[in-house]
Amino acid sequence: MSTISPPQNPEANPRVKAVFDDIRTTRGTNFINNLWRYLAFDLVILEKTWQDVKDVMAKPSHLDPMTKELIYAAVSIANSCEYCIHSHTAAARAKGMSDEQYAEFLSIVSLAGRTNHLLNGIKVPIDPEFNHEKS
Amino acid sequence: MSTISPPQNPEANPRVKAVFDDIRTTRGTNFINNLWRYLAFDLVILEKTWQDVKDVMAKPSHLDPMTKELIYAAVSIANSCEYCIHSHTAAARAKGMSDEQYAEFLSIVSLAGRTNHLLNGIKVPIDPEFNHEKS
Amino acid sequence: MSTISPPQNPEANPRVKAVFDDIRTTRGTNFINNLWRYLAFDLVILEKTWQDVKDVMAKPSHLDPMTKELIYAAVSIANSCEYCIHSHTAAARAKGMSDEQYAEFLSIVSLAGRTNHLLNGIKVPIDPEFNHEKS
Amino acid sequence: MSTISPPQNPEANPRVKAVFDDIRTTRGTNFINNLWRYLAFDLVILEKTWQDVKDVMAKPSHLDPMTKELIYAAVSIANSCEYCIHSHTAAARAKGMSDEQYAEFLSIVSLAGRTNHLLNGIKVPIDPEFNHEKS
Amino acid sequence: MSTISPPQNPEANPRVKAVFDDIRTTRGTNFINNLWRYLAFDLVILEKTWQDVKDVMAKPSHLDPMTKELIYAAVSIANSCEYCIHSHTAAARAKGMSDEQYAEFLSIVSLAGRTNHLLNGIKVPIDPEFNHEKS
Amino acid sequence: MSTISPPQNPEANPRVKAVFDDIRTTRGTNFINNLWRYLAFDLVILEKTWQDVKDVMAKPSHLDPMTKELIYAAVSIANSCEYCIHSHTAAARAKGMSDEQYAEFLSIVSLAGRTNHLLNGIKVPIDPEFNHEKS
Repeated sequence: MSTISPPQNPEANPRVKAVFDDIRTTRGTNFINNLWRYLAFDLVILEKTWQDVKDVMAKPSHLDPMTKELIYAAVSIANSCEYCIHSHTAAARAKGMSDEQYAEFLSIVSLAGRTNHLLNGIKVPIDPEFNHEKS
Repeated sequence: MSTISPPQNPEANPRVKAVFDDIRTTRGTNFINNLWRYLAFDLVILEKTWQDVKDVMAKPSHLDPMTKELIYAAVSIANSCEYCIHSHTAAARAKGMSDEQYAEFLSIVSLAGRTNHLLNGIKVPIDPEFNHEKS
Repeated sequence: MSTISPPQNPEANPRVKAVFDDIRTTRGTNFINNLWRYLAFDLVILEKTWQDVKDVMAKPSHLDPMTKELIYAAVSIANSCEYCIHSHTAAARAKGMSDEQYAEFLSIVSLAGRTNHLLNGIKVPIDPEFNHEKS
Repeated sequence: MSTISPPQNPEANPRVKAVFDDIRTTRGTNFINNLWRYLAFDLVILEKTWQDVKDVMAKPSHLDPMTKELIYAAVSIANSCEYCIHSHTAAARAKGMSDEQYAEFLSIVSLAGRTNHLLNGIKVPIDPEFNHEKS
Repeated sequence: MSTISPPQNPEANPRVKAVFDDIRTTRGTNFINNLWRYLAFDLVILEKTWQDVKDVMAKPSHLDPMTKELIYAAVSIANSCEYCIHSHTAAARAKGMSDEQYAEFLSIVSLAGRTNHLLNGIKVPIDPEFNHEKS
Repeated sequence: MSTISPPQNPEANPRVKAVFDDIRTTRGTNFINNLWRYLAFDLVILEKTWQDVKDVMAKPSHLDPMTKELIYAAVSIANSCEYCIHSHTAAARAKGMSDEQYAEFLSIVSLAGRTNHLLNGIKVPIDPEFNHEKS
């Protein structure tokens, strides 16, 4: 159940079609996942969200594509965003994540969950050695 | 201000000394950060937390060391664990993260924060194509 | 699947009936949503929750009714409370929220998600100009 | 303590100066808060964040300026982003929020915190009446 | 730095004094912690918050006083509420929590943090055996 | 829908069988809940997670078994981990939690949700009396 009603034939709108075409070209696939079909309910949100995702995730950069999906998925798990967890785990697999790497990813995410709670409970003072501000 | 009182001379206890020595050897540094000095308040928590961190983060594995720190830092940001954010950002730098990679990391984490909230608000149904369970 | 078992015929209990009647009168509708049917499993929780919701949300006040629902929905999205997201988005619509306002609401919530993560990652020091304490 | 080191004389860079000038013009004030001084560590993040904040928060729209700040602050409280809480509470005051409205805002945010936890614990099934998808 | 300005001499107001006196009597101490001094900025919030805390936490009940503080502190750690973590950890100690029990509490909270993240990542289907609804 | 594919016949693997047998013996039941069936996708995660849960939750200790489950469930609610909420609420019932105790638990968890949000919004300074560090 969604809080919005996606358009029935989204690509009838040329601005939606332009975004969907760019998604297809950028990703090299005809598959348009539900996120974009639903975001088509509002043209500005659709265009800005895709532009942002394209700029950050789909352009050559200083981090490799699989690492970027793992960072995205890690935040999504901590924020309990079910759609984002599924889509970015699938994307990480599509970009080469092996079963062993996924198991290791889950070990890191859950270890972080453990020490985040332990440290938030204890409130350890931050070492001045970690300060990067005056370097 | 912490909720526990760390021991004044932790290495007087041989079990604490053994953990601290292993941290020094594993990391190749004499620096013991506050986390371990505070966890020394309870020997079991100290030993188990270090064993876990060592197993997951310090052993050769299917993900490179910097990527592992970025995943850890991403979860810590989403969970608002200030100590963990500082310690794992510093660790990522120590393992080779450049300023450009850190800026890109922040762009991914904040984009995930954006779409996590957008999707949690809209509740888009999950595409069956993402299902990995029956593969 | 719920962790409690709601009573089959809740209004057989006069205290439940009194709350449900007050909900109907206050809201001007015969619709009692599942929240209240489930909370009827415990009379004190039912009565106190309704009293709180009525005091804060249903009385004339310094903020208009739609704004109050938007604030409620914003917190619910950040906390990933699926029921609350649906009920308060519906309530905002019932109190006049247009499609354009909902799109704008989602833009603000997701922008906040973005900068919350960016700022929690960077840990920018708070400007003394924001201090309201000594004014 | 921040995880980045802001430039000492940020406006020496013309791209930073252009953003700061636009902030001053848009807001009608000479005050540049720390957020922007720190984001100047990376020109792309600075420019994109300001463009986003300007588009969503500073343009005439279907929600009034104070309401927009309250929605932003509500998300920031739920996400425990200290800087964001202070800056958007201050912005809401600057846009006309009275002490009575702030007290009411806090009552709504904390009531949402209460029922979010109550409902997440009980897992009440969502009423089909809330479905907006097929309308 | 707080977002509100607490009254300088709060007990000059008889409604504040009545709440503070009830806190002193109920808790058997003259110590009024900052929470109440700050909440005195709004009489309704002060009175309702104290009434709620008193009803839930200070009355004889089906759970012992220390267990109640531990549940409160556990939620506060997961929500990163620094004040609440300190106040309810201190309250648990005041109600008899030993150092061993606190270490065990932290072990449970951090184990929950670990498996919460692991399970939120994997999305294991819920066993029908856990269903309490139709019992 | 899960992000991993659990093995069809997990106990064909002797390491999985050893863990499942230990779960049956430790808990005195033949029921193996889905968590363990799914975690069998990775032997190390399965073994380490069970060892951790057994050490922290299943051994005689300074907190009674029901209290431990309530602390676990409280964190899980705040983190929105649906599986964990159901499994630990069921475990608390199995360890003696009455309906009255569950209602009280929910009252504490939701009160904590309320004051966590209120205090995170107001940012009350922490009383020095709560400091345990120098004791």
